Amino acid sequence: MPSVSEIASFLAAEFPQSRCTVLAVGDKAATIRHEVGHAELRPGGTVSGPVLMTVADVALYVALLGEIGIVPLAVTTSLNINFLRKPSADRAIIGECKLIKLGRTLAVGEVSLYSEGLEDPVAHVVGTYAIPRGAA
Amino acid sequence: MPSVSEIASFLAAEFPQSRCTVLAVGDKAATIRHEVGHAELRPGGTVSGPVLMTVADVALYVALLGEIGIVPLAVTTSLNINFLRKPSADRAIIGECKLIKLGRTLAVGEVSLYSEGLEDPVAHVVGTYAIPRGAA
Amino acid sequence: MPSVSEIASFLAAEFPQSRCTVLAVGDKAATIRHEVGHAELRPGGTVSGPVLMTVADVALYVALLGEIGIVPLAVTTSLNINFLRKPSADRAIIGECKLIKLGRTLAVGEVSLYSEGLEDPVAHVVGTYAIPRGAA
Amino acid sequence: MPSVSEIASFLAAEFPQSRCTVLAVGDKAATIRHEVGHAELRPGGTVSGPVLMTVADVALYVALLGEIGIVPLAVTTSLNINFLRKPSADRAIIGECKLIKLGRTLAVGEVSLYSEGLEDPVAHVVGTYAIPRGAA
Repeated sequence: MPSVSEIASFLAAEFPQSRCTVLAVGDKAATIRHEVGHAELRPGGTVSGPVLMTVADVALYVALLGEIGIVPLAVTTSLNINFLRKPSADRAIIGECKLIKLGRTLAVGEVSLYSEGLEDPVAHVVGTYAIPRGAA
Repeated sequence: MPSVSEIASFLAAEFPQSRCTVLAVGDKAATIRHEVGHAELRPGGTVSGPVLMTVADVALYVALLGEIGIVPLAVTTSLNINFLRKPSADRAIIGECKLIKLGRTLAVGEVSLYSEGLEDPVAHVVGTYAIPRGAA
Repeated sequence: MPSVSEIASFLAAEFPQSRCTVLAVGDKAATIRHEVGHAELRPGGTVSGPVLMTVADVALYVALLGEIGIVPLAVTTSLNINFLRKPSADRAIIGECKLIKLGRTLAVGEVSLYSEGLEDPVAHVVGTYAIPRGAA
Repeated sequence: MPSVSEIASFLAAEFPQSRCTVLAVGDKAATIRHEVGHAELRPGGTVSGPVLMTVADVALYVALLGEIGIVPLAVTTSLNINFLRKPSADRAIIGECKLIKLGRTLAVGEVSLYSEGLEDPVAHVVGTYAIPRGAA
């Protein structure tokens, strides 16, 4: 199965605009970190929703790649996000994903999103990925 | 109720990074357009998921502002997106929102997302907004 | 493609506890009706959530069967419901489904649920079905 | 805060058709058990989707009542369920809910559903409840 650095190289090519870094992967889980700077903030000092969704999507993808290997054709089929608390403007976003199903054609995972260092999640995501036939 | 240009000015201040333009608003509905260029594409020539989610979120927000007036404190509480087809790399994204509930504290809307000029939707979103007390 | 009566016979065998009747099917759509009596009500006189979810699930299934033929192995993979208004205690529930994607392995549909004869929907559902390989 | 038996009495009145029993409540969590018999099965020997949704809904409600006291007017506003594995036909369904947000007007929880005694979840739910003003 791919290492953190192999996945990081793949992500840099697949999501070149992304500022996500891979903190951990393996055992049907992944942890992603996304810096928060001016580009990620909205007036009032909150992290924008699309940044949170990006972190969740990448966390799901990385957790999946950690199980099935680097498969560029896996695609997100759905994402359900609940925004729970206002993220901190001066802390990175951390996404912790656990896969709850890894089938032949479909994977389902949940992601808790945090402001780095704080205990209560800022958002919660459930997402599904379609796995190309023959990949898993 | 606010005009398209009043809402556009508000959005430019609230979502300064956004490239969304407001095509129509009113009657519990809104239509949003988002240019697609290099920054919105992923390798393979598909529009990135977060761009689609941004268009849906803005379309919901604009449809809501069209009903309750410009209320900066309305916040997204959930967003559920299903990705249906690969968007075209060389067409803008159009988001058409209809509100299906407008209560005192919660609004619910659905958004169909299209590659401009094509008939089949590329994604479908249901989202909810919390309305600050006293606003509606 | 199967007729309303062929689908009705199949449903009677597959969902023997269900009280759903098929009003219409075809053109990637279906309309389902569910009587409301004592068994469907909760104290306070509202139709129970599981009844609404059942109608939505059956409407999705029937719309799908109308396109791919009677395929007992199609299974619901997700269902997202938003409850919008209190249903009437003395009216049947009507579910109107439109399929928004019909792929080889996955179908996605939305369902608006009404108290029969009233205009505003009581709930809105987006659901996905997995289609067995070789069926579509 | 209410005891398990106080909540059980309330549920017996509110959901008289339900066959759920409360195994545990407190600390922003609840565990619910639902017998599986002929009425809960579909042909092929799987537990019907509405039964799973009922268990999730009750688990969310009980976890919420455990925090805010017995408030009959709390209502489900949304439920998102992913079906993960075929439930066992001869085991009860267990629902384990954790609240991930408890605000003044909105509570959000997730529920993992199991066939009793088996390790992998059969379904996963995220649901939201609206809390009447003045209750929390």
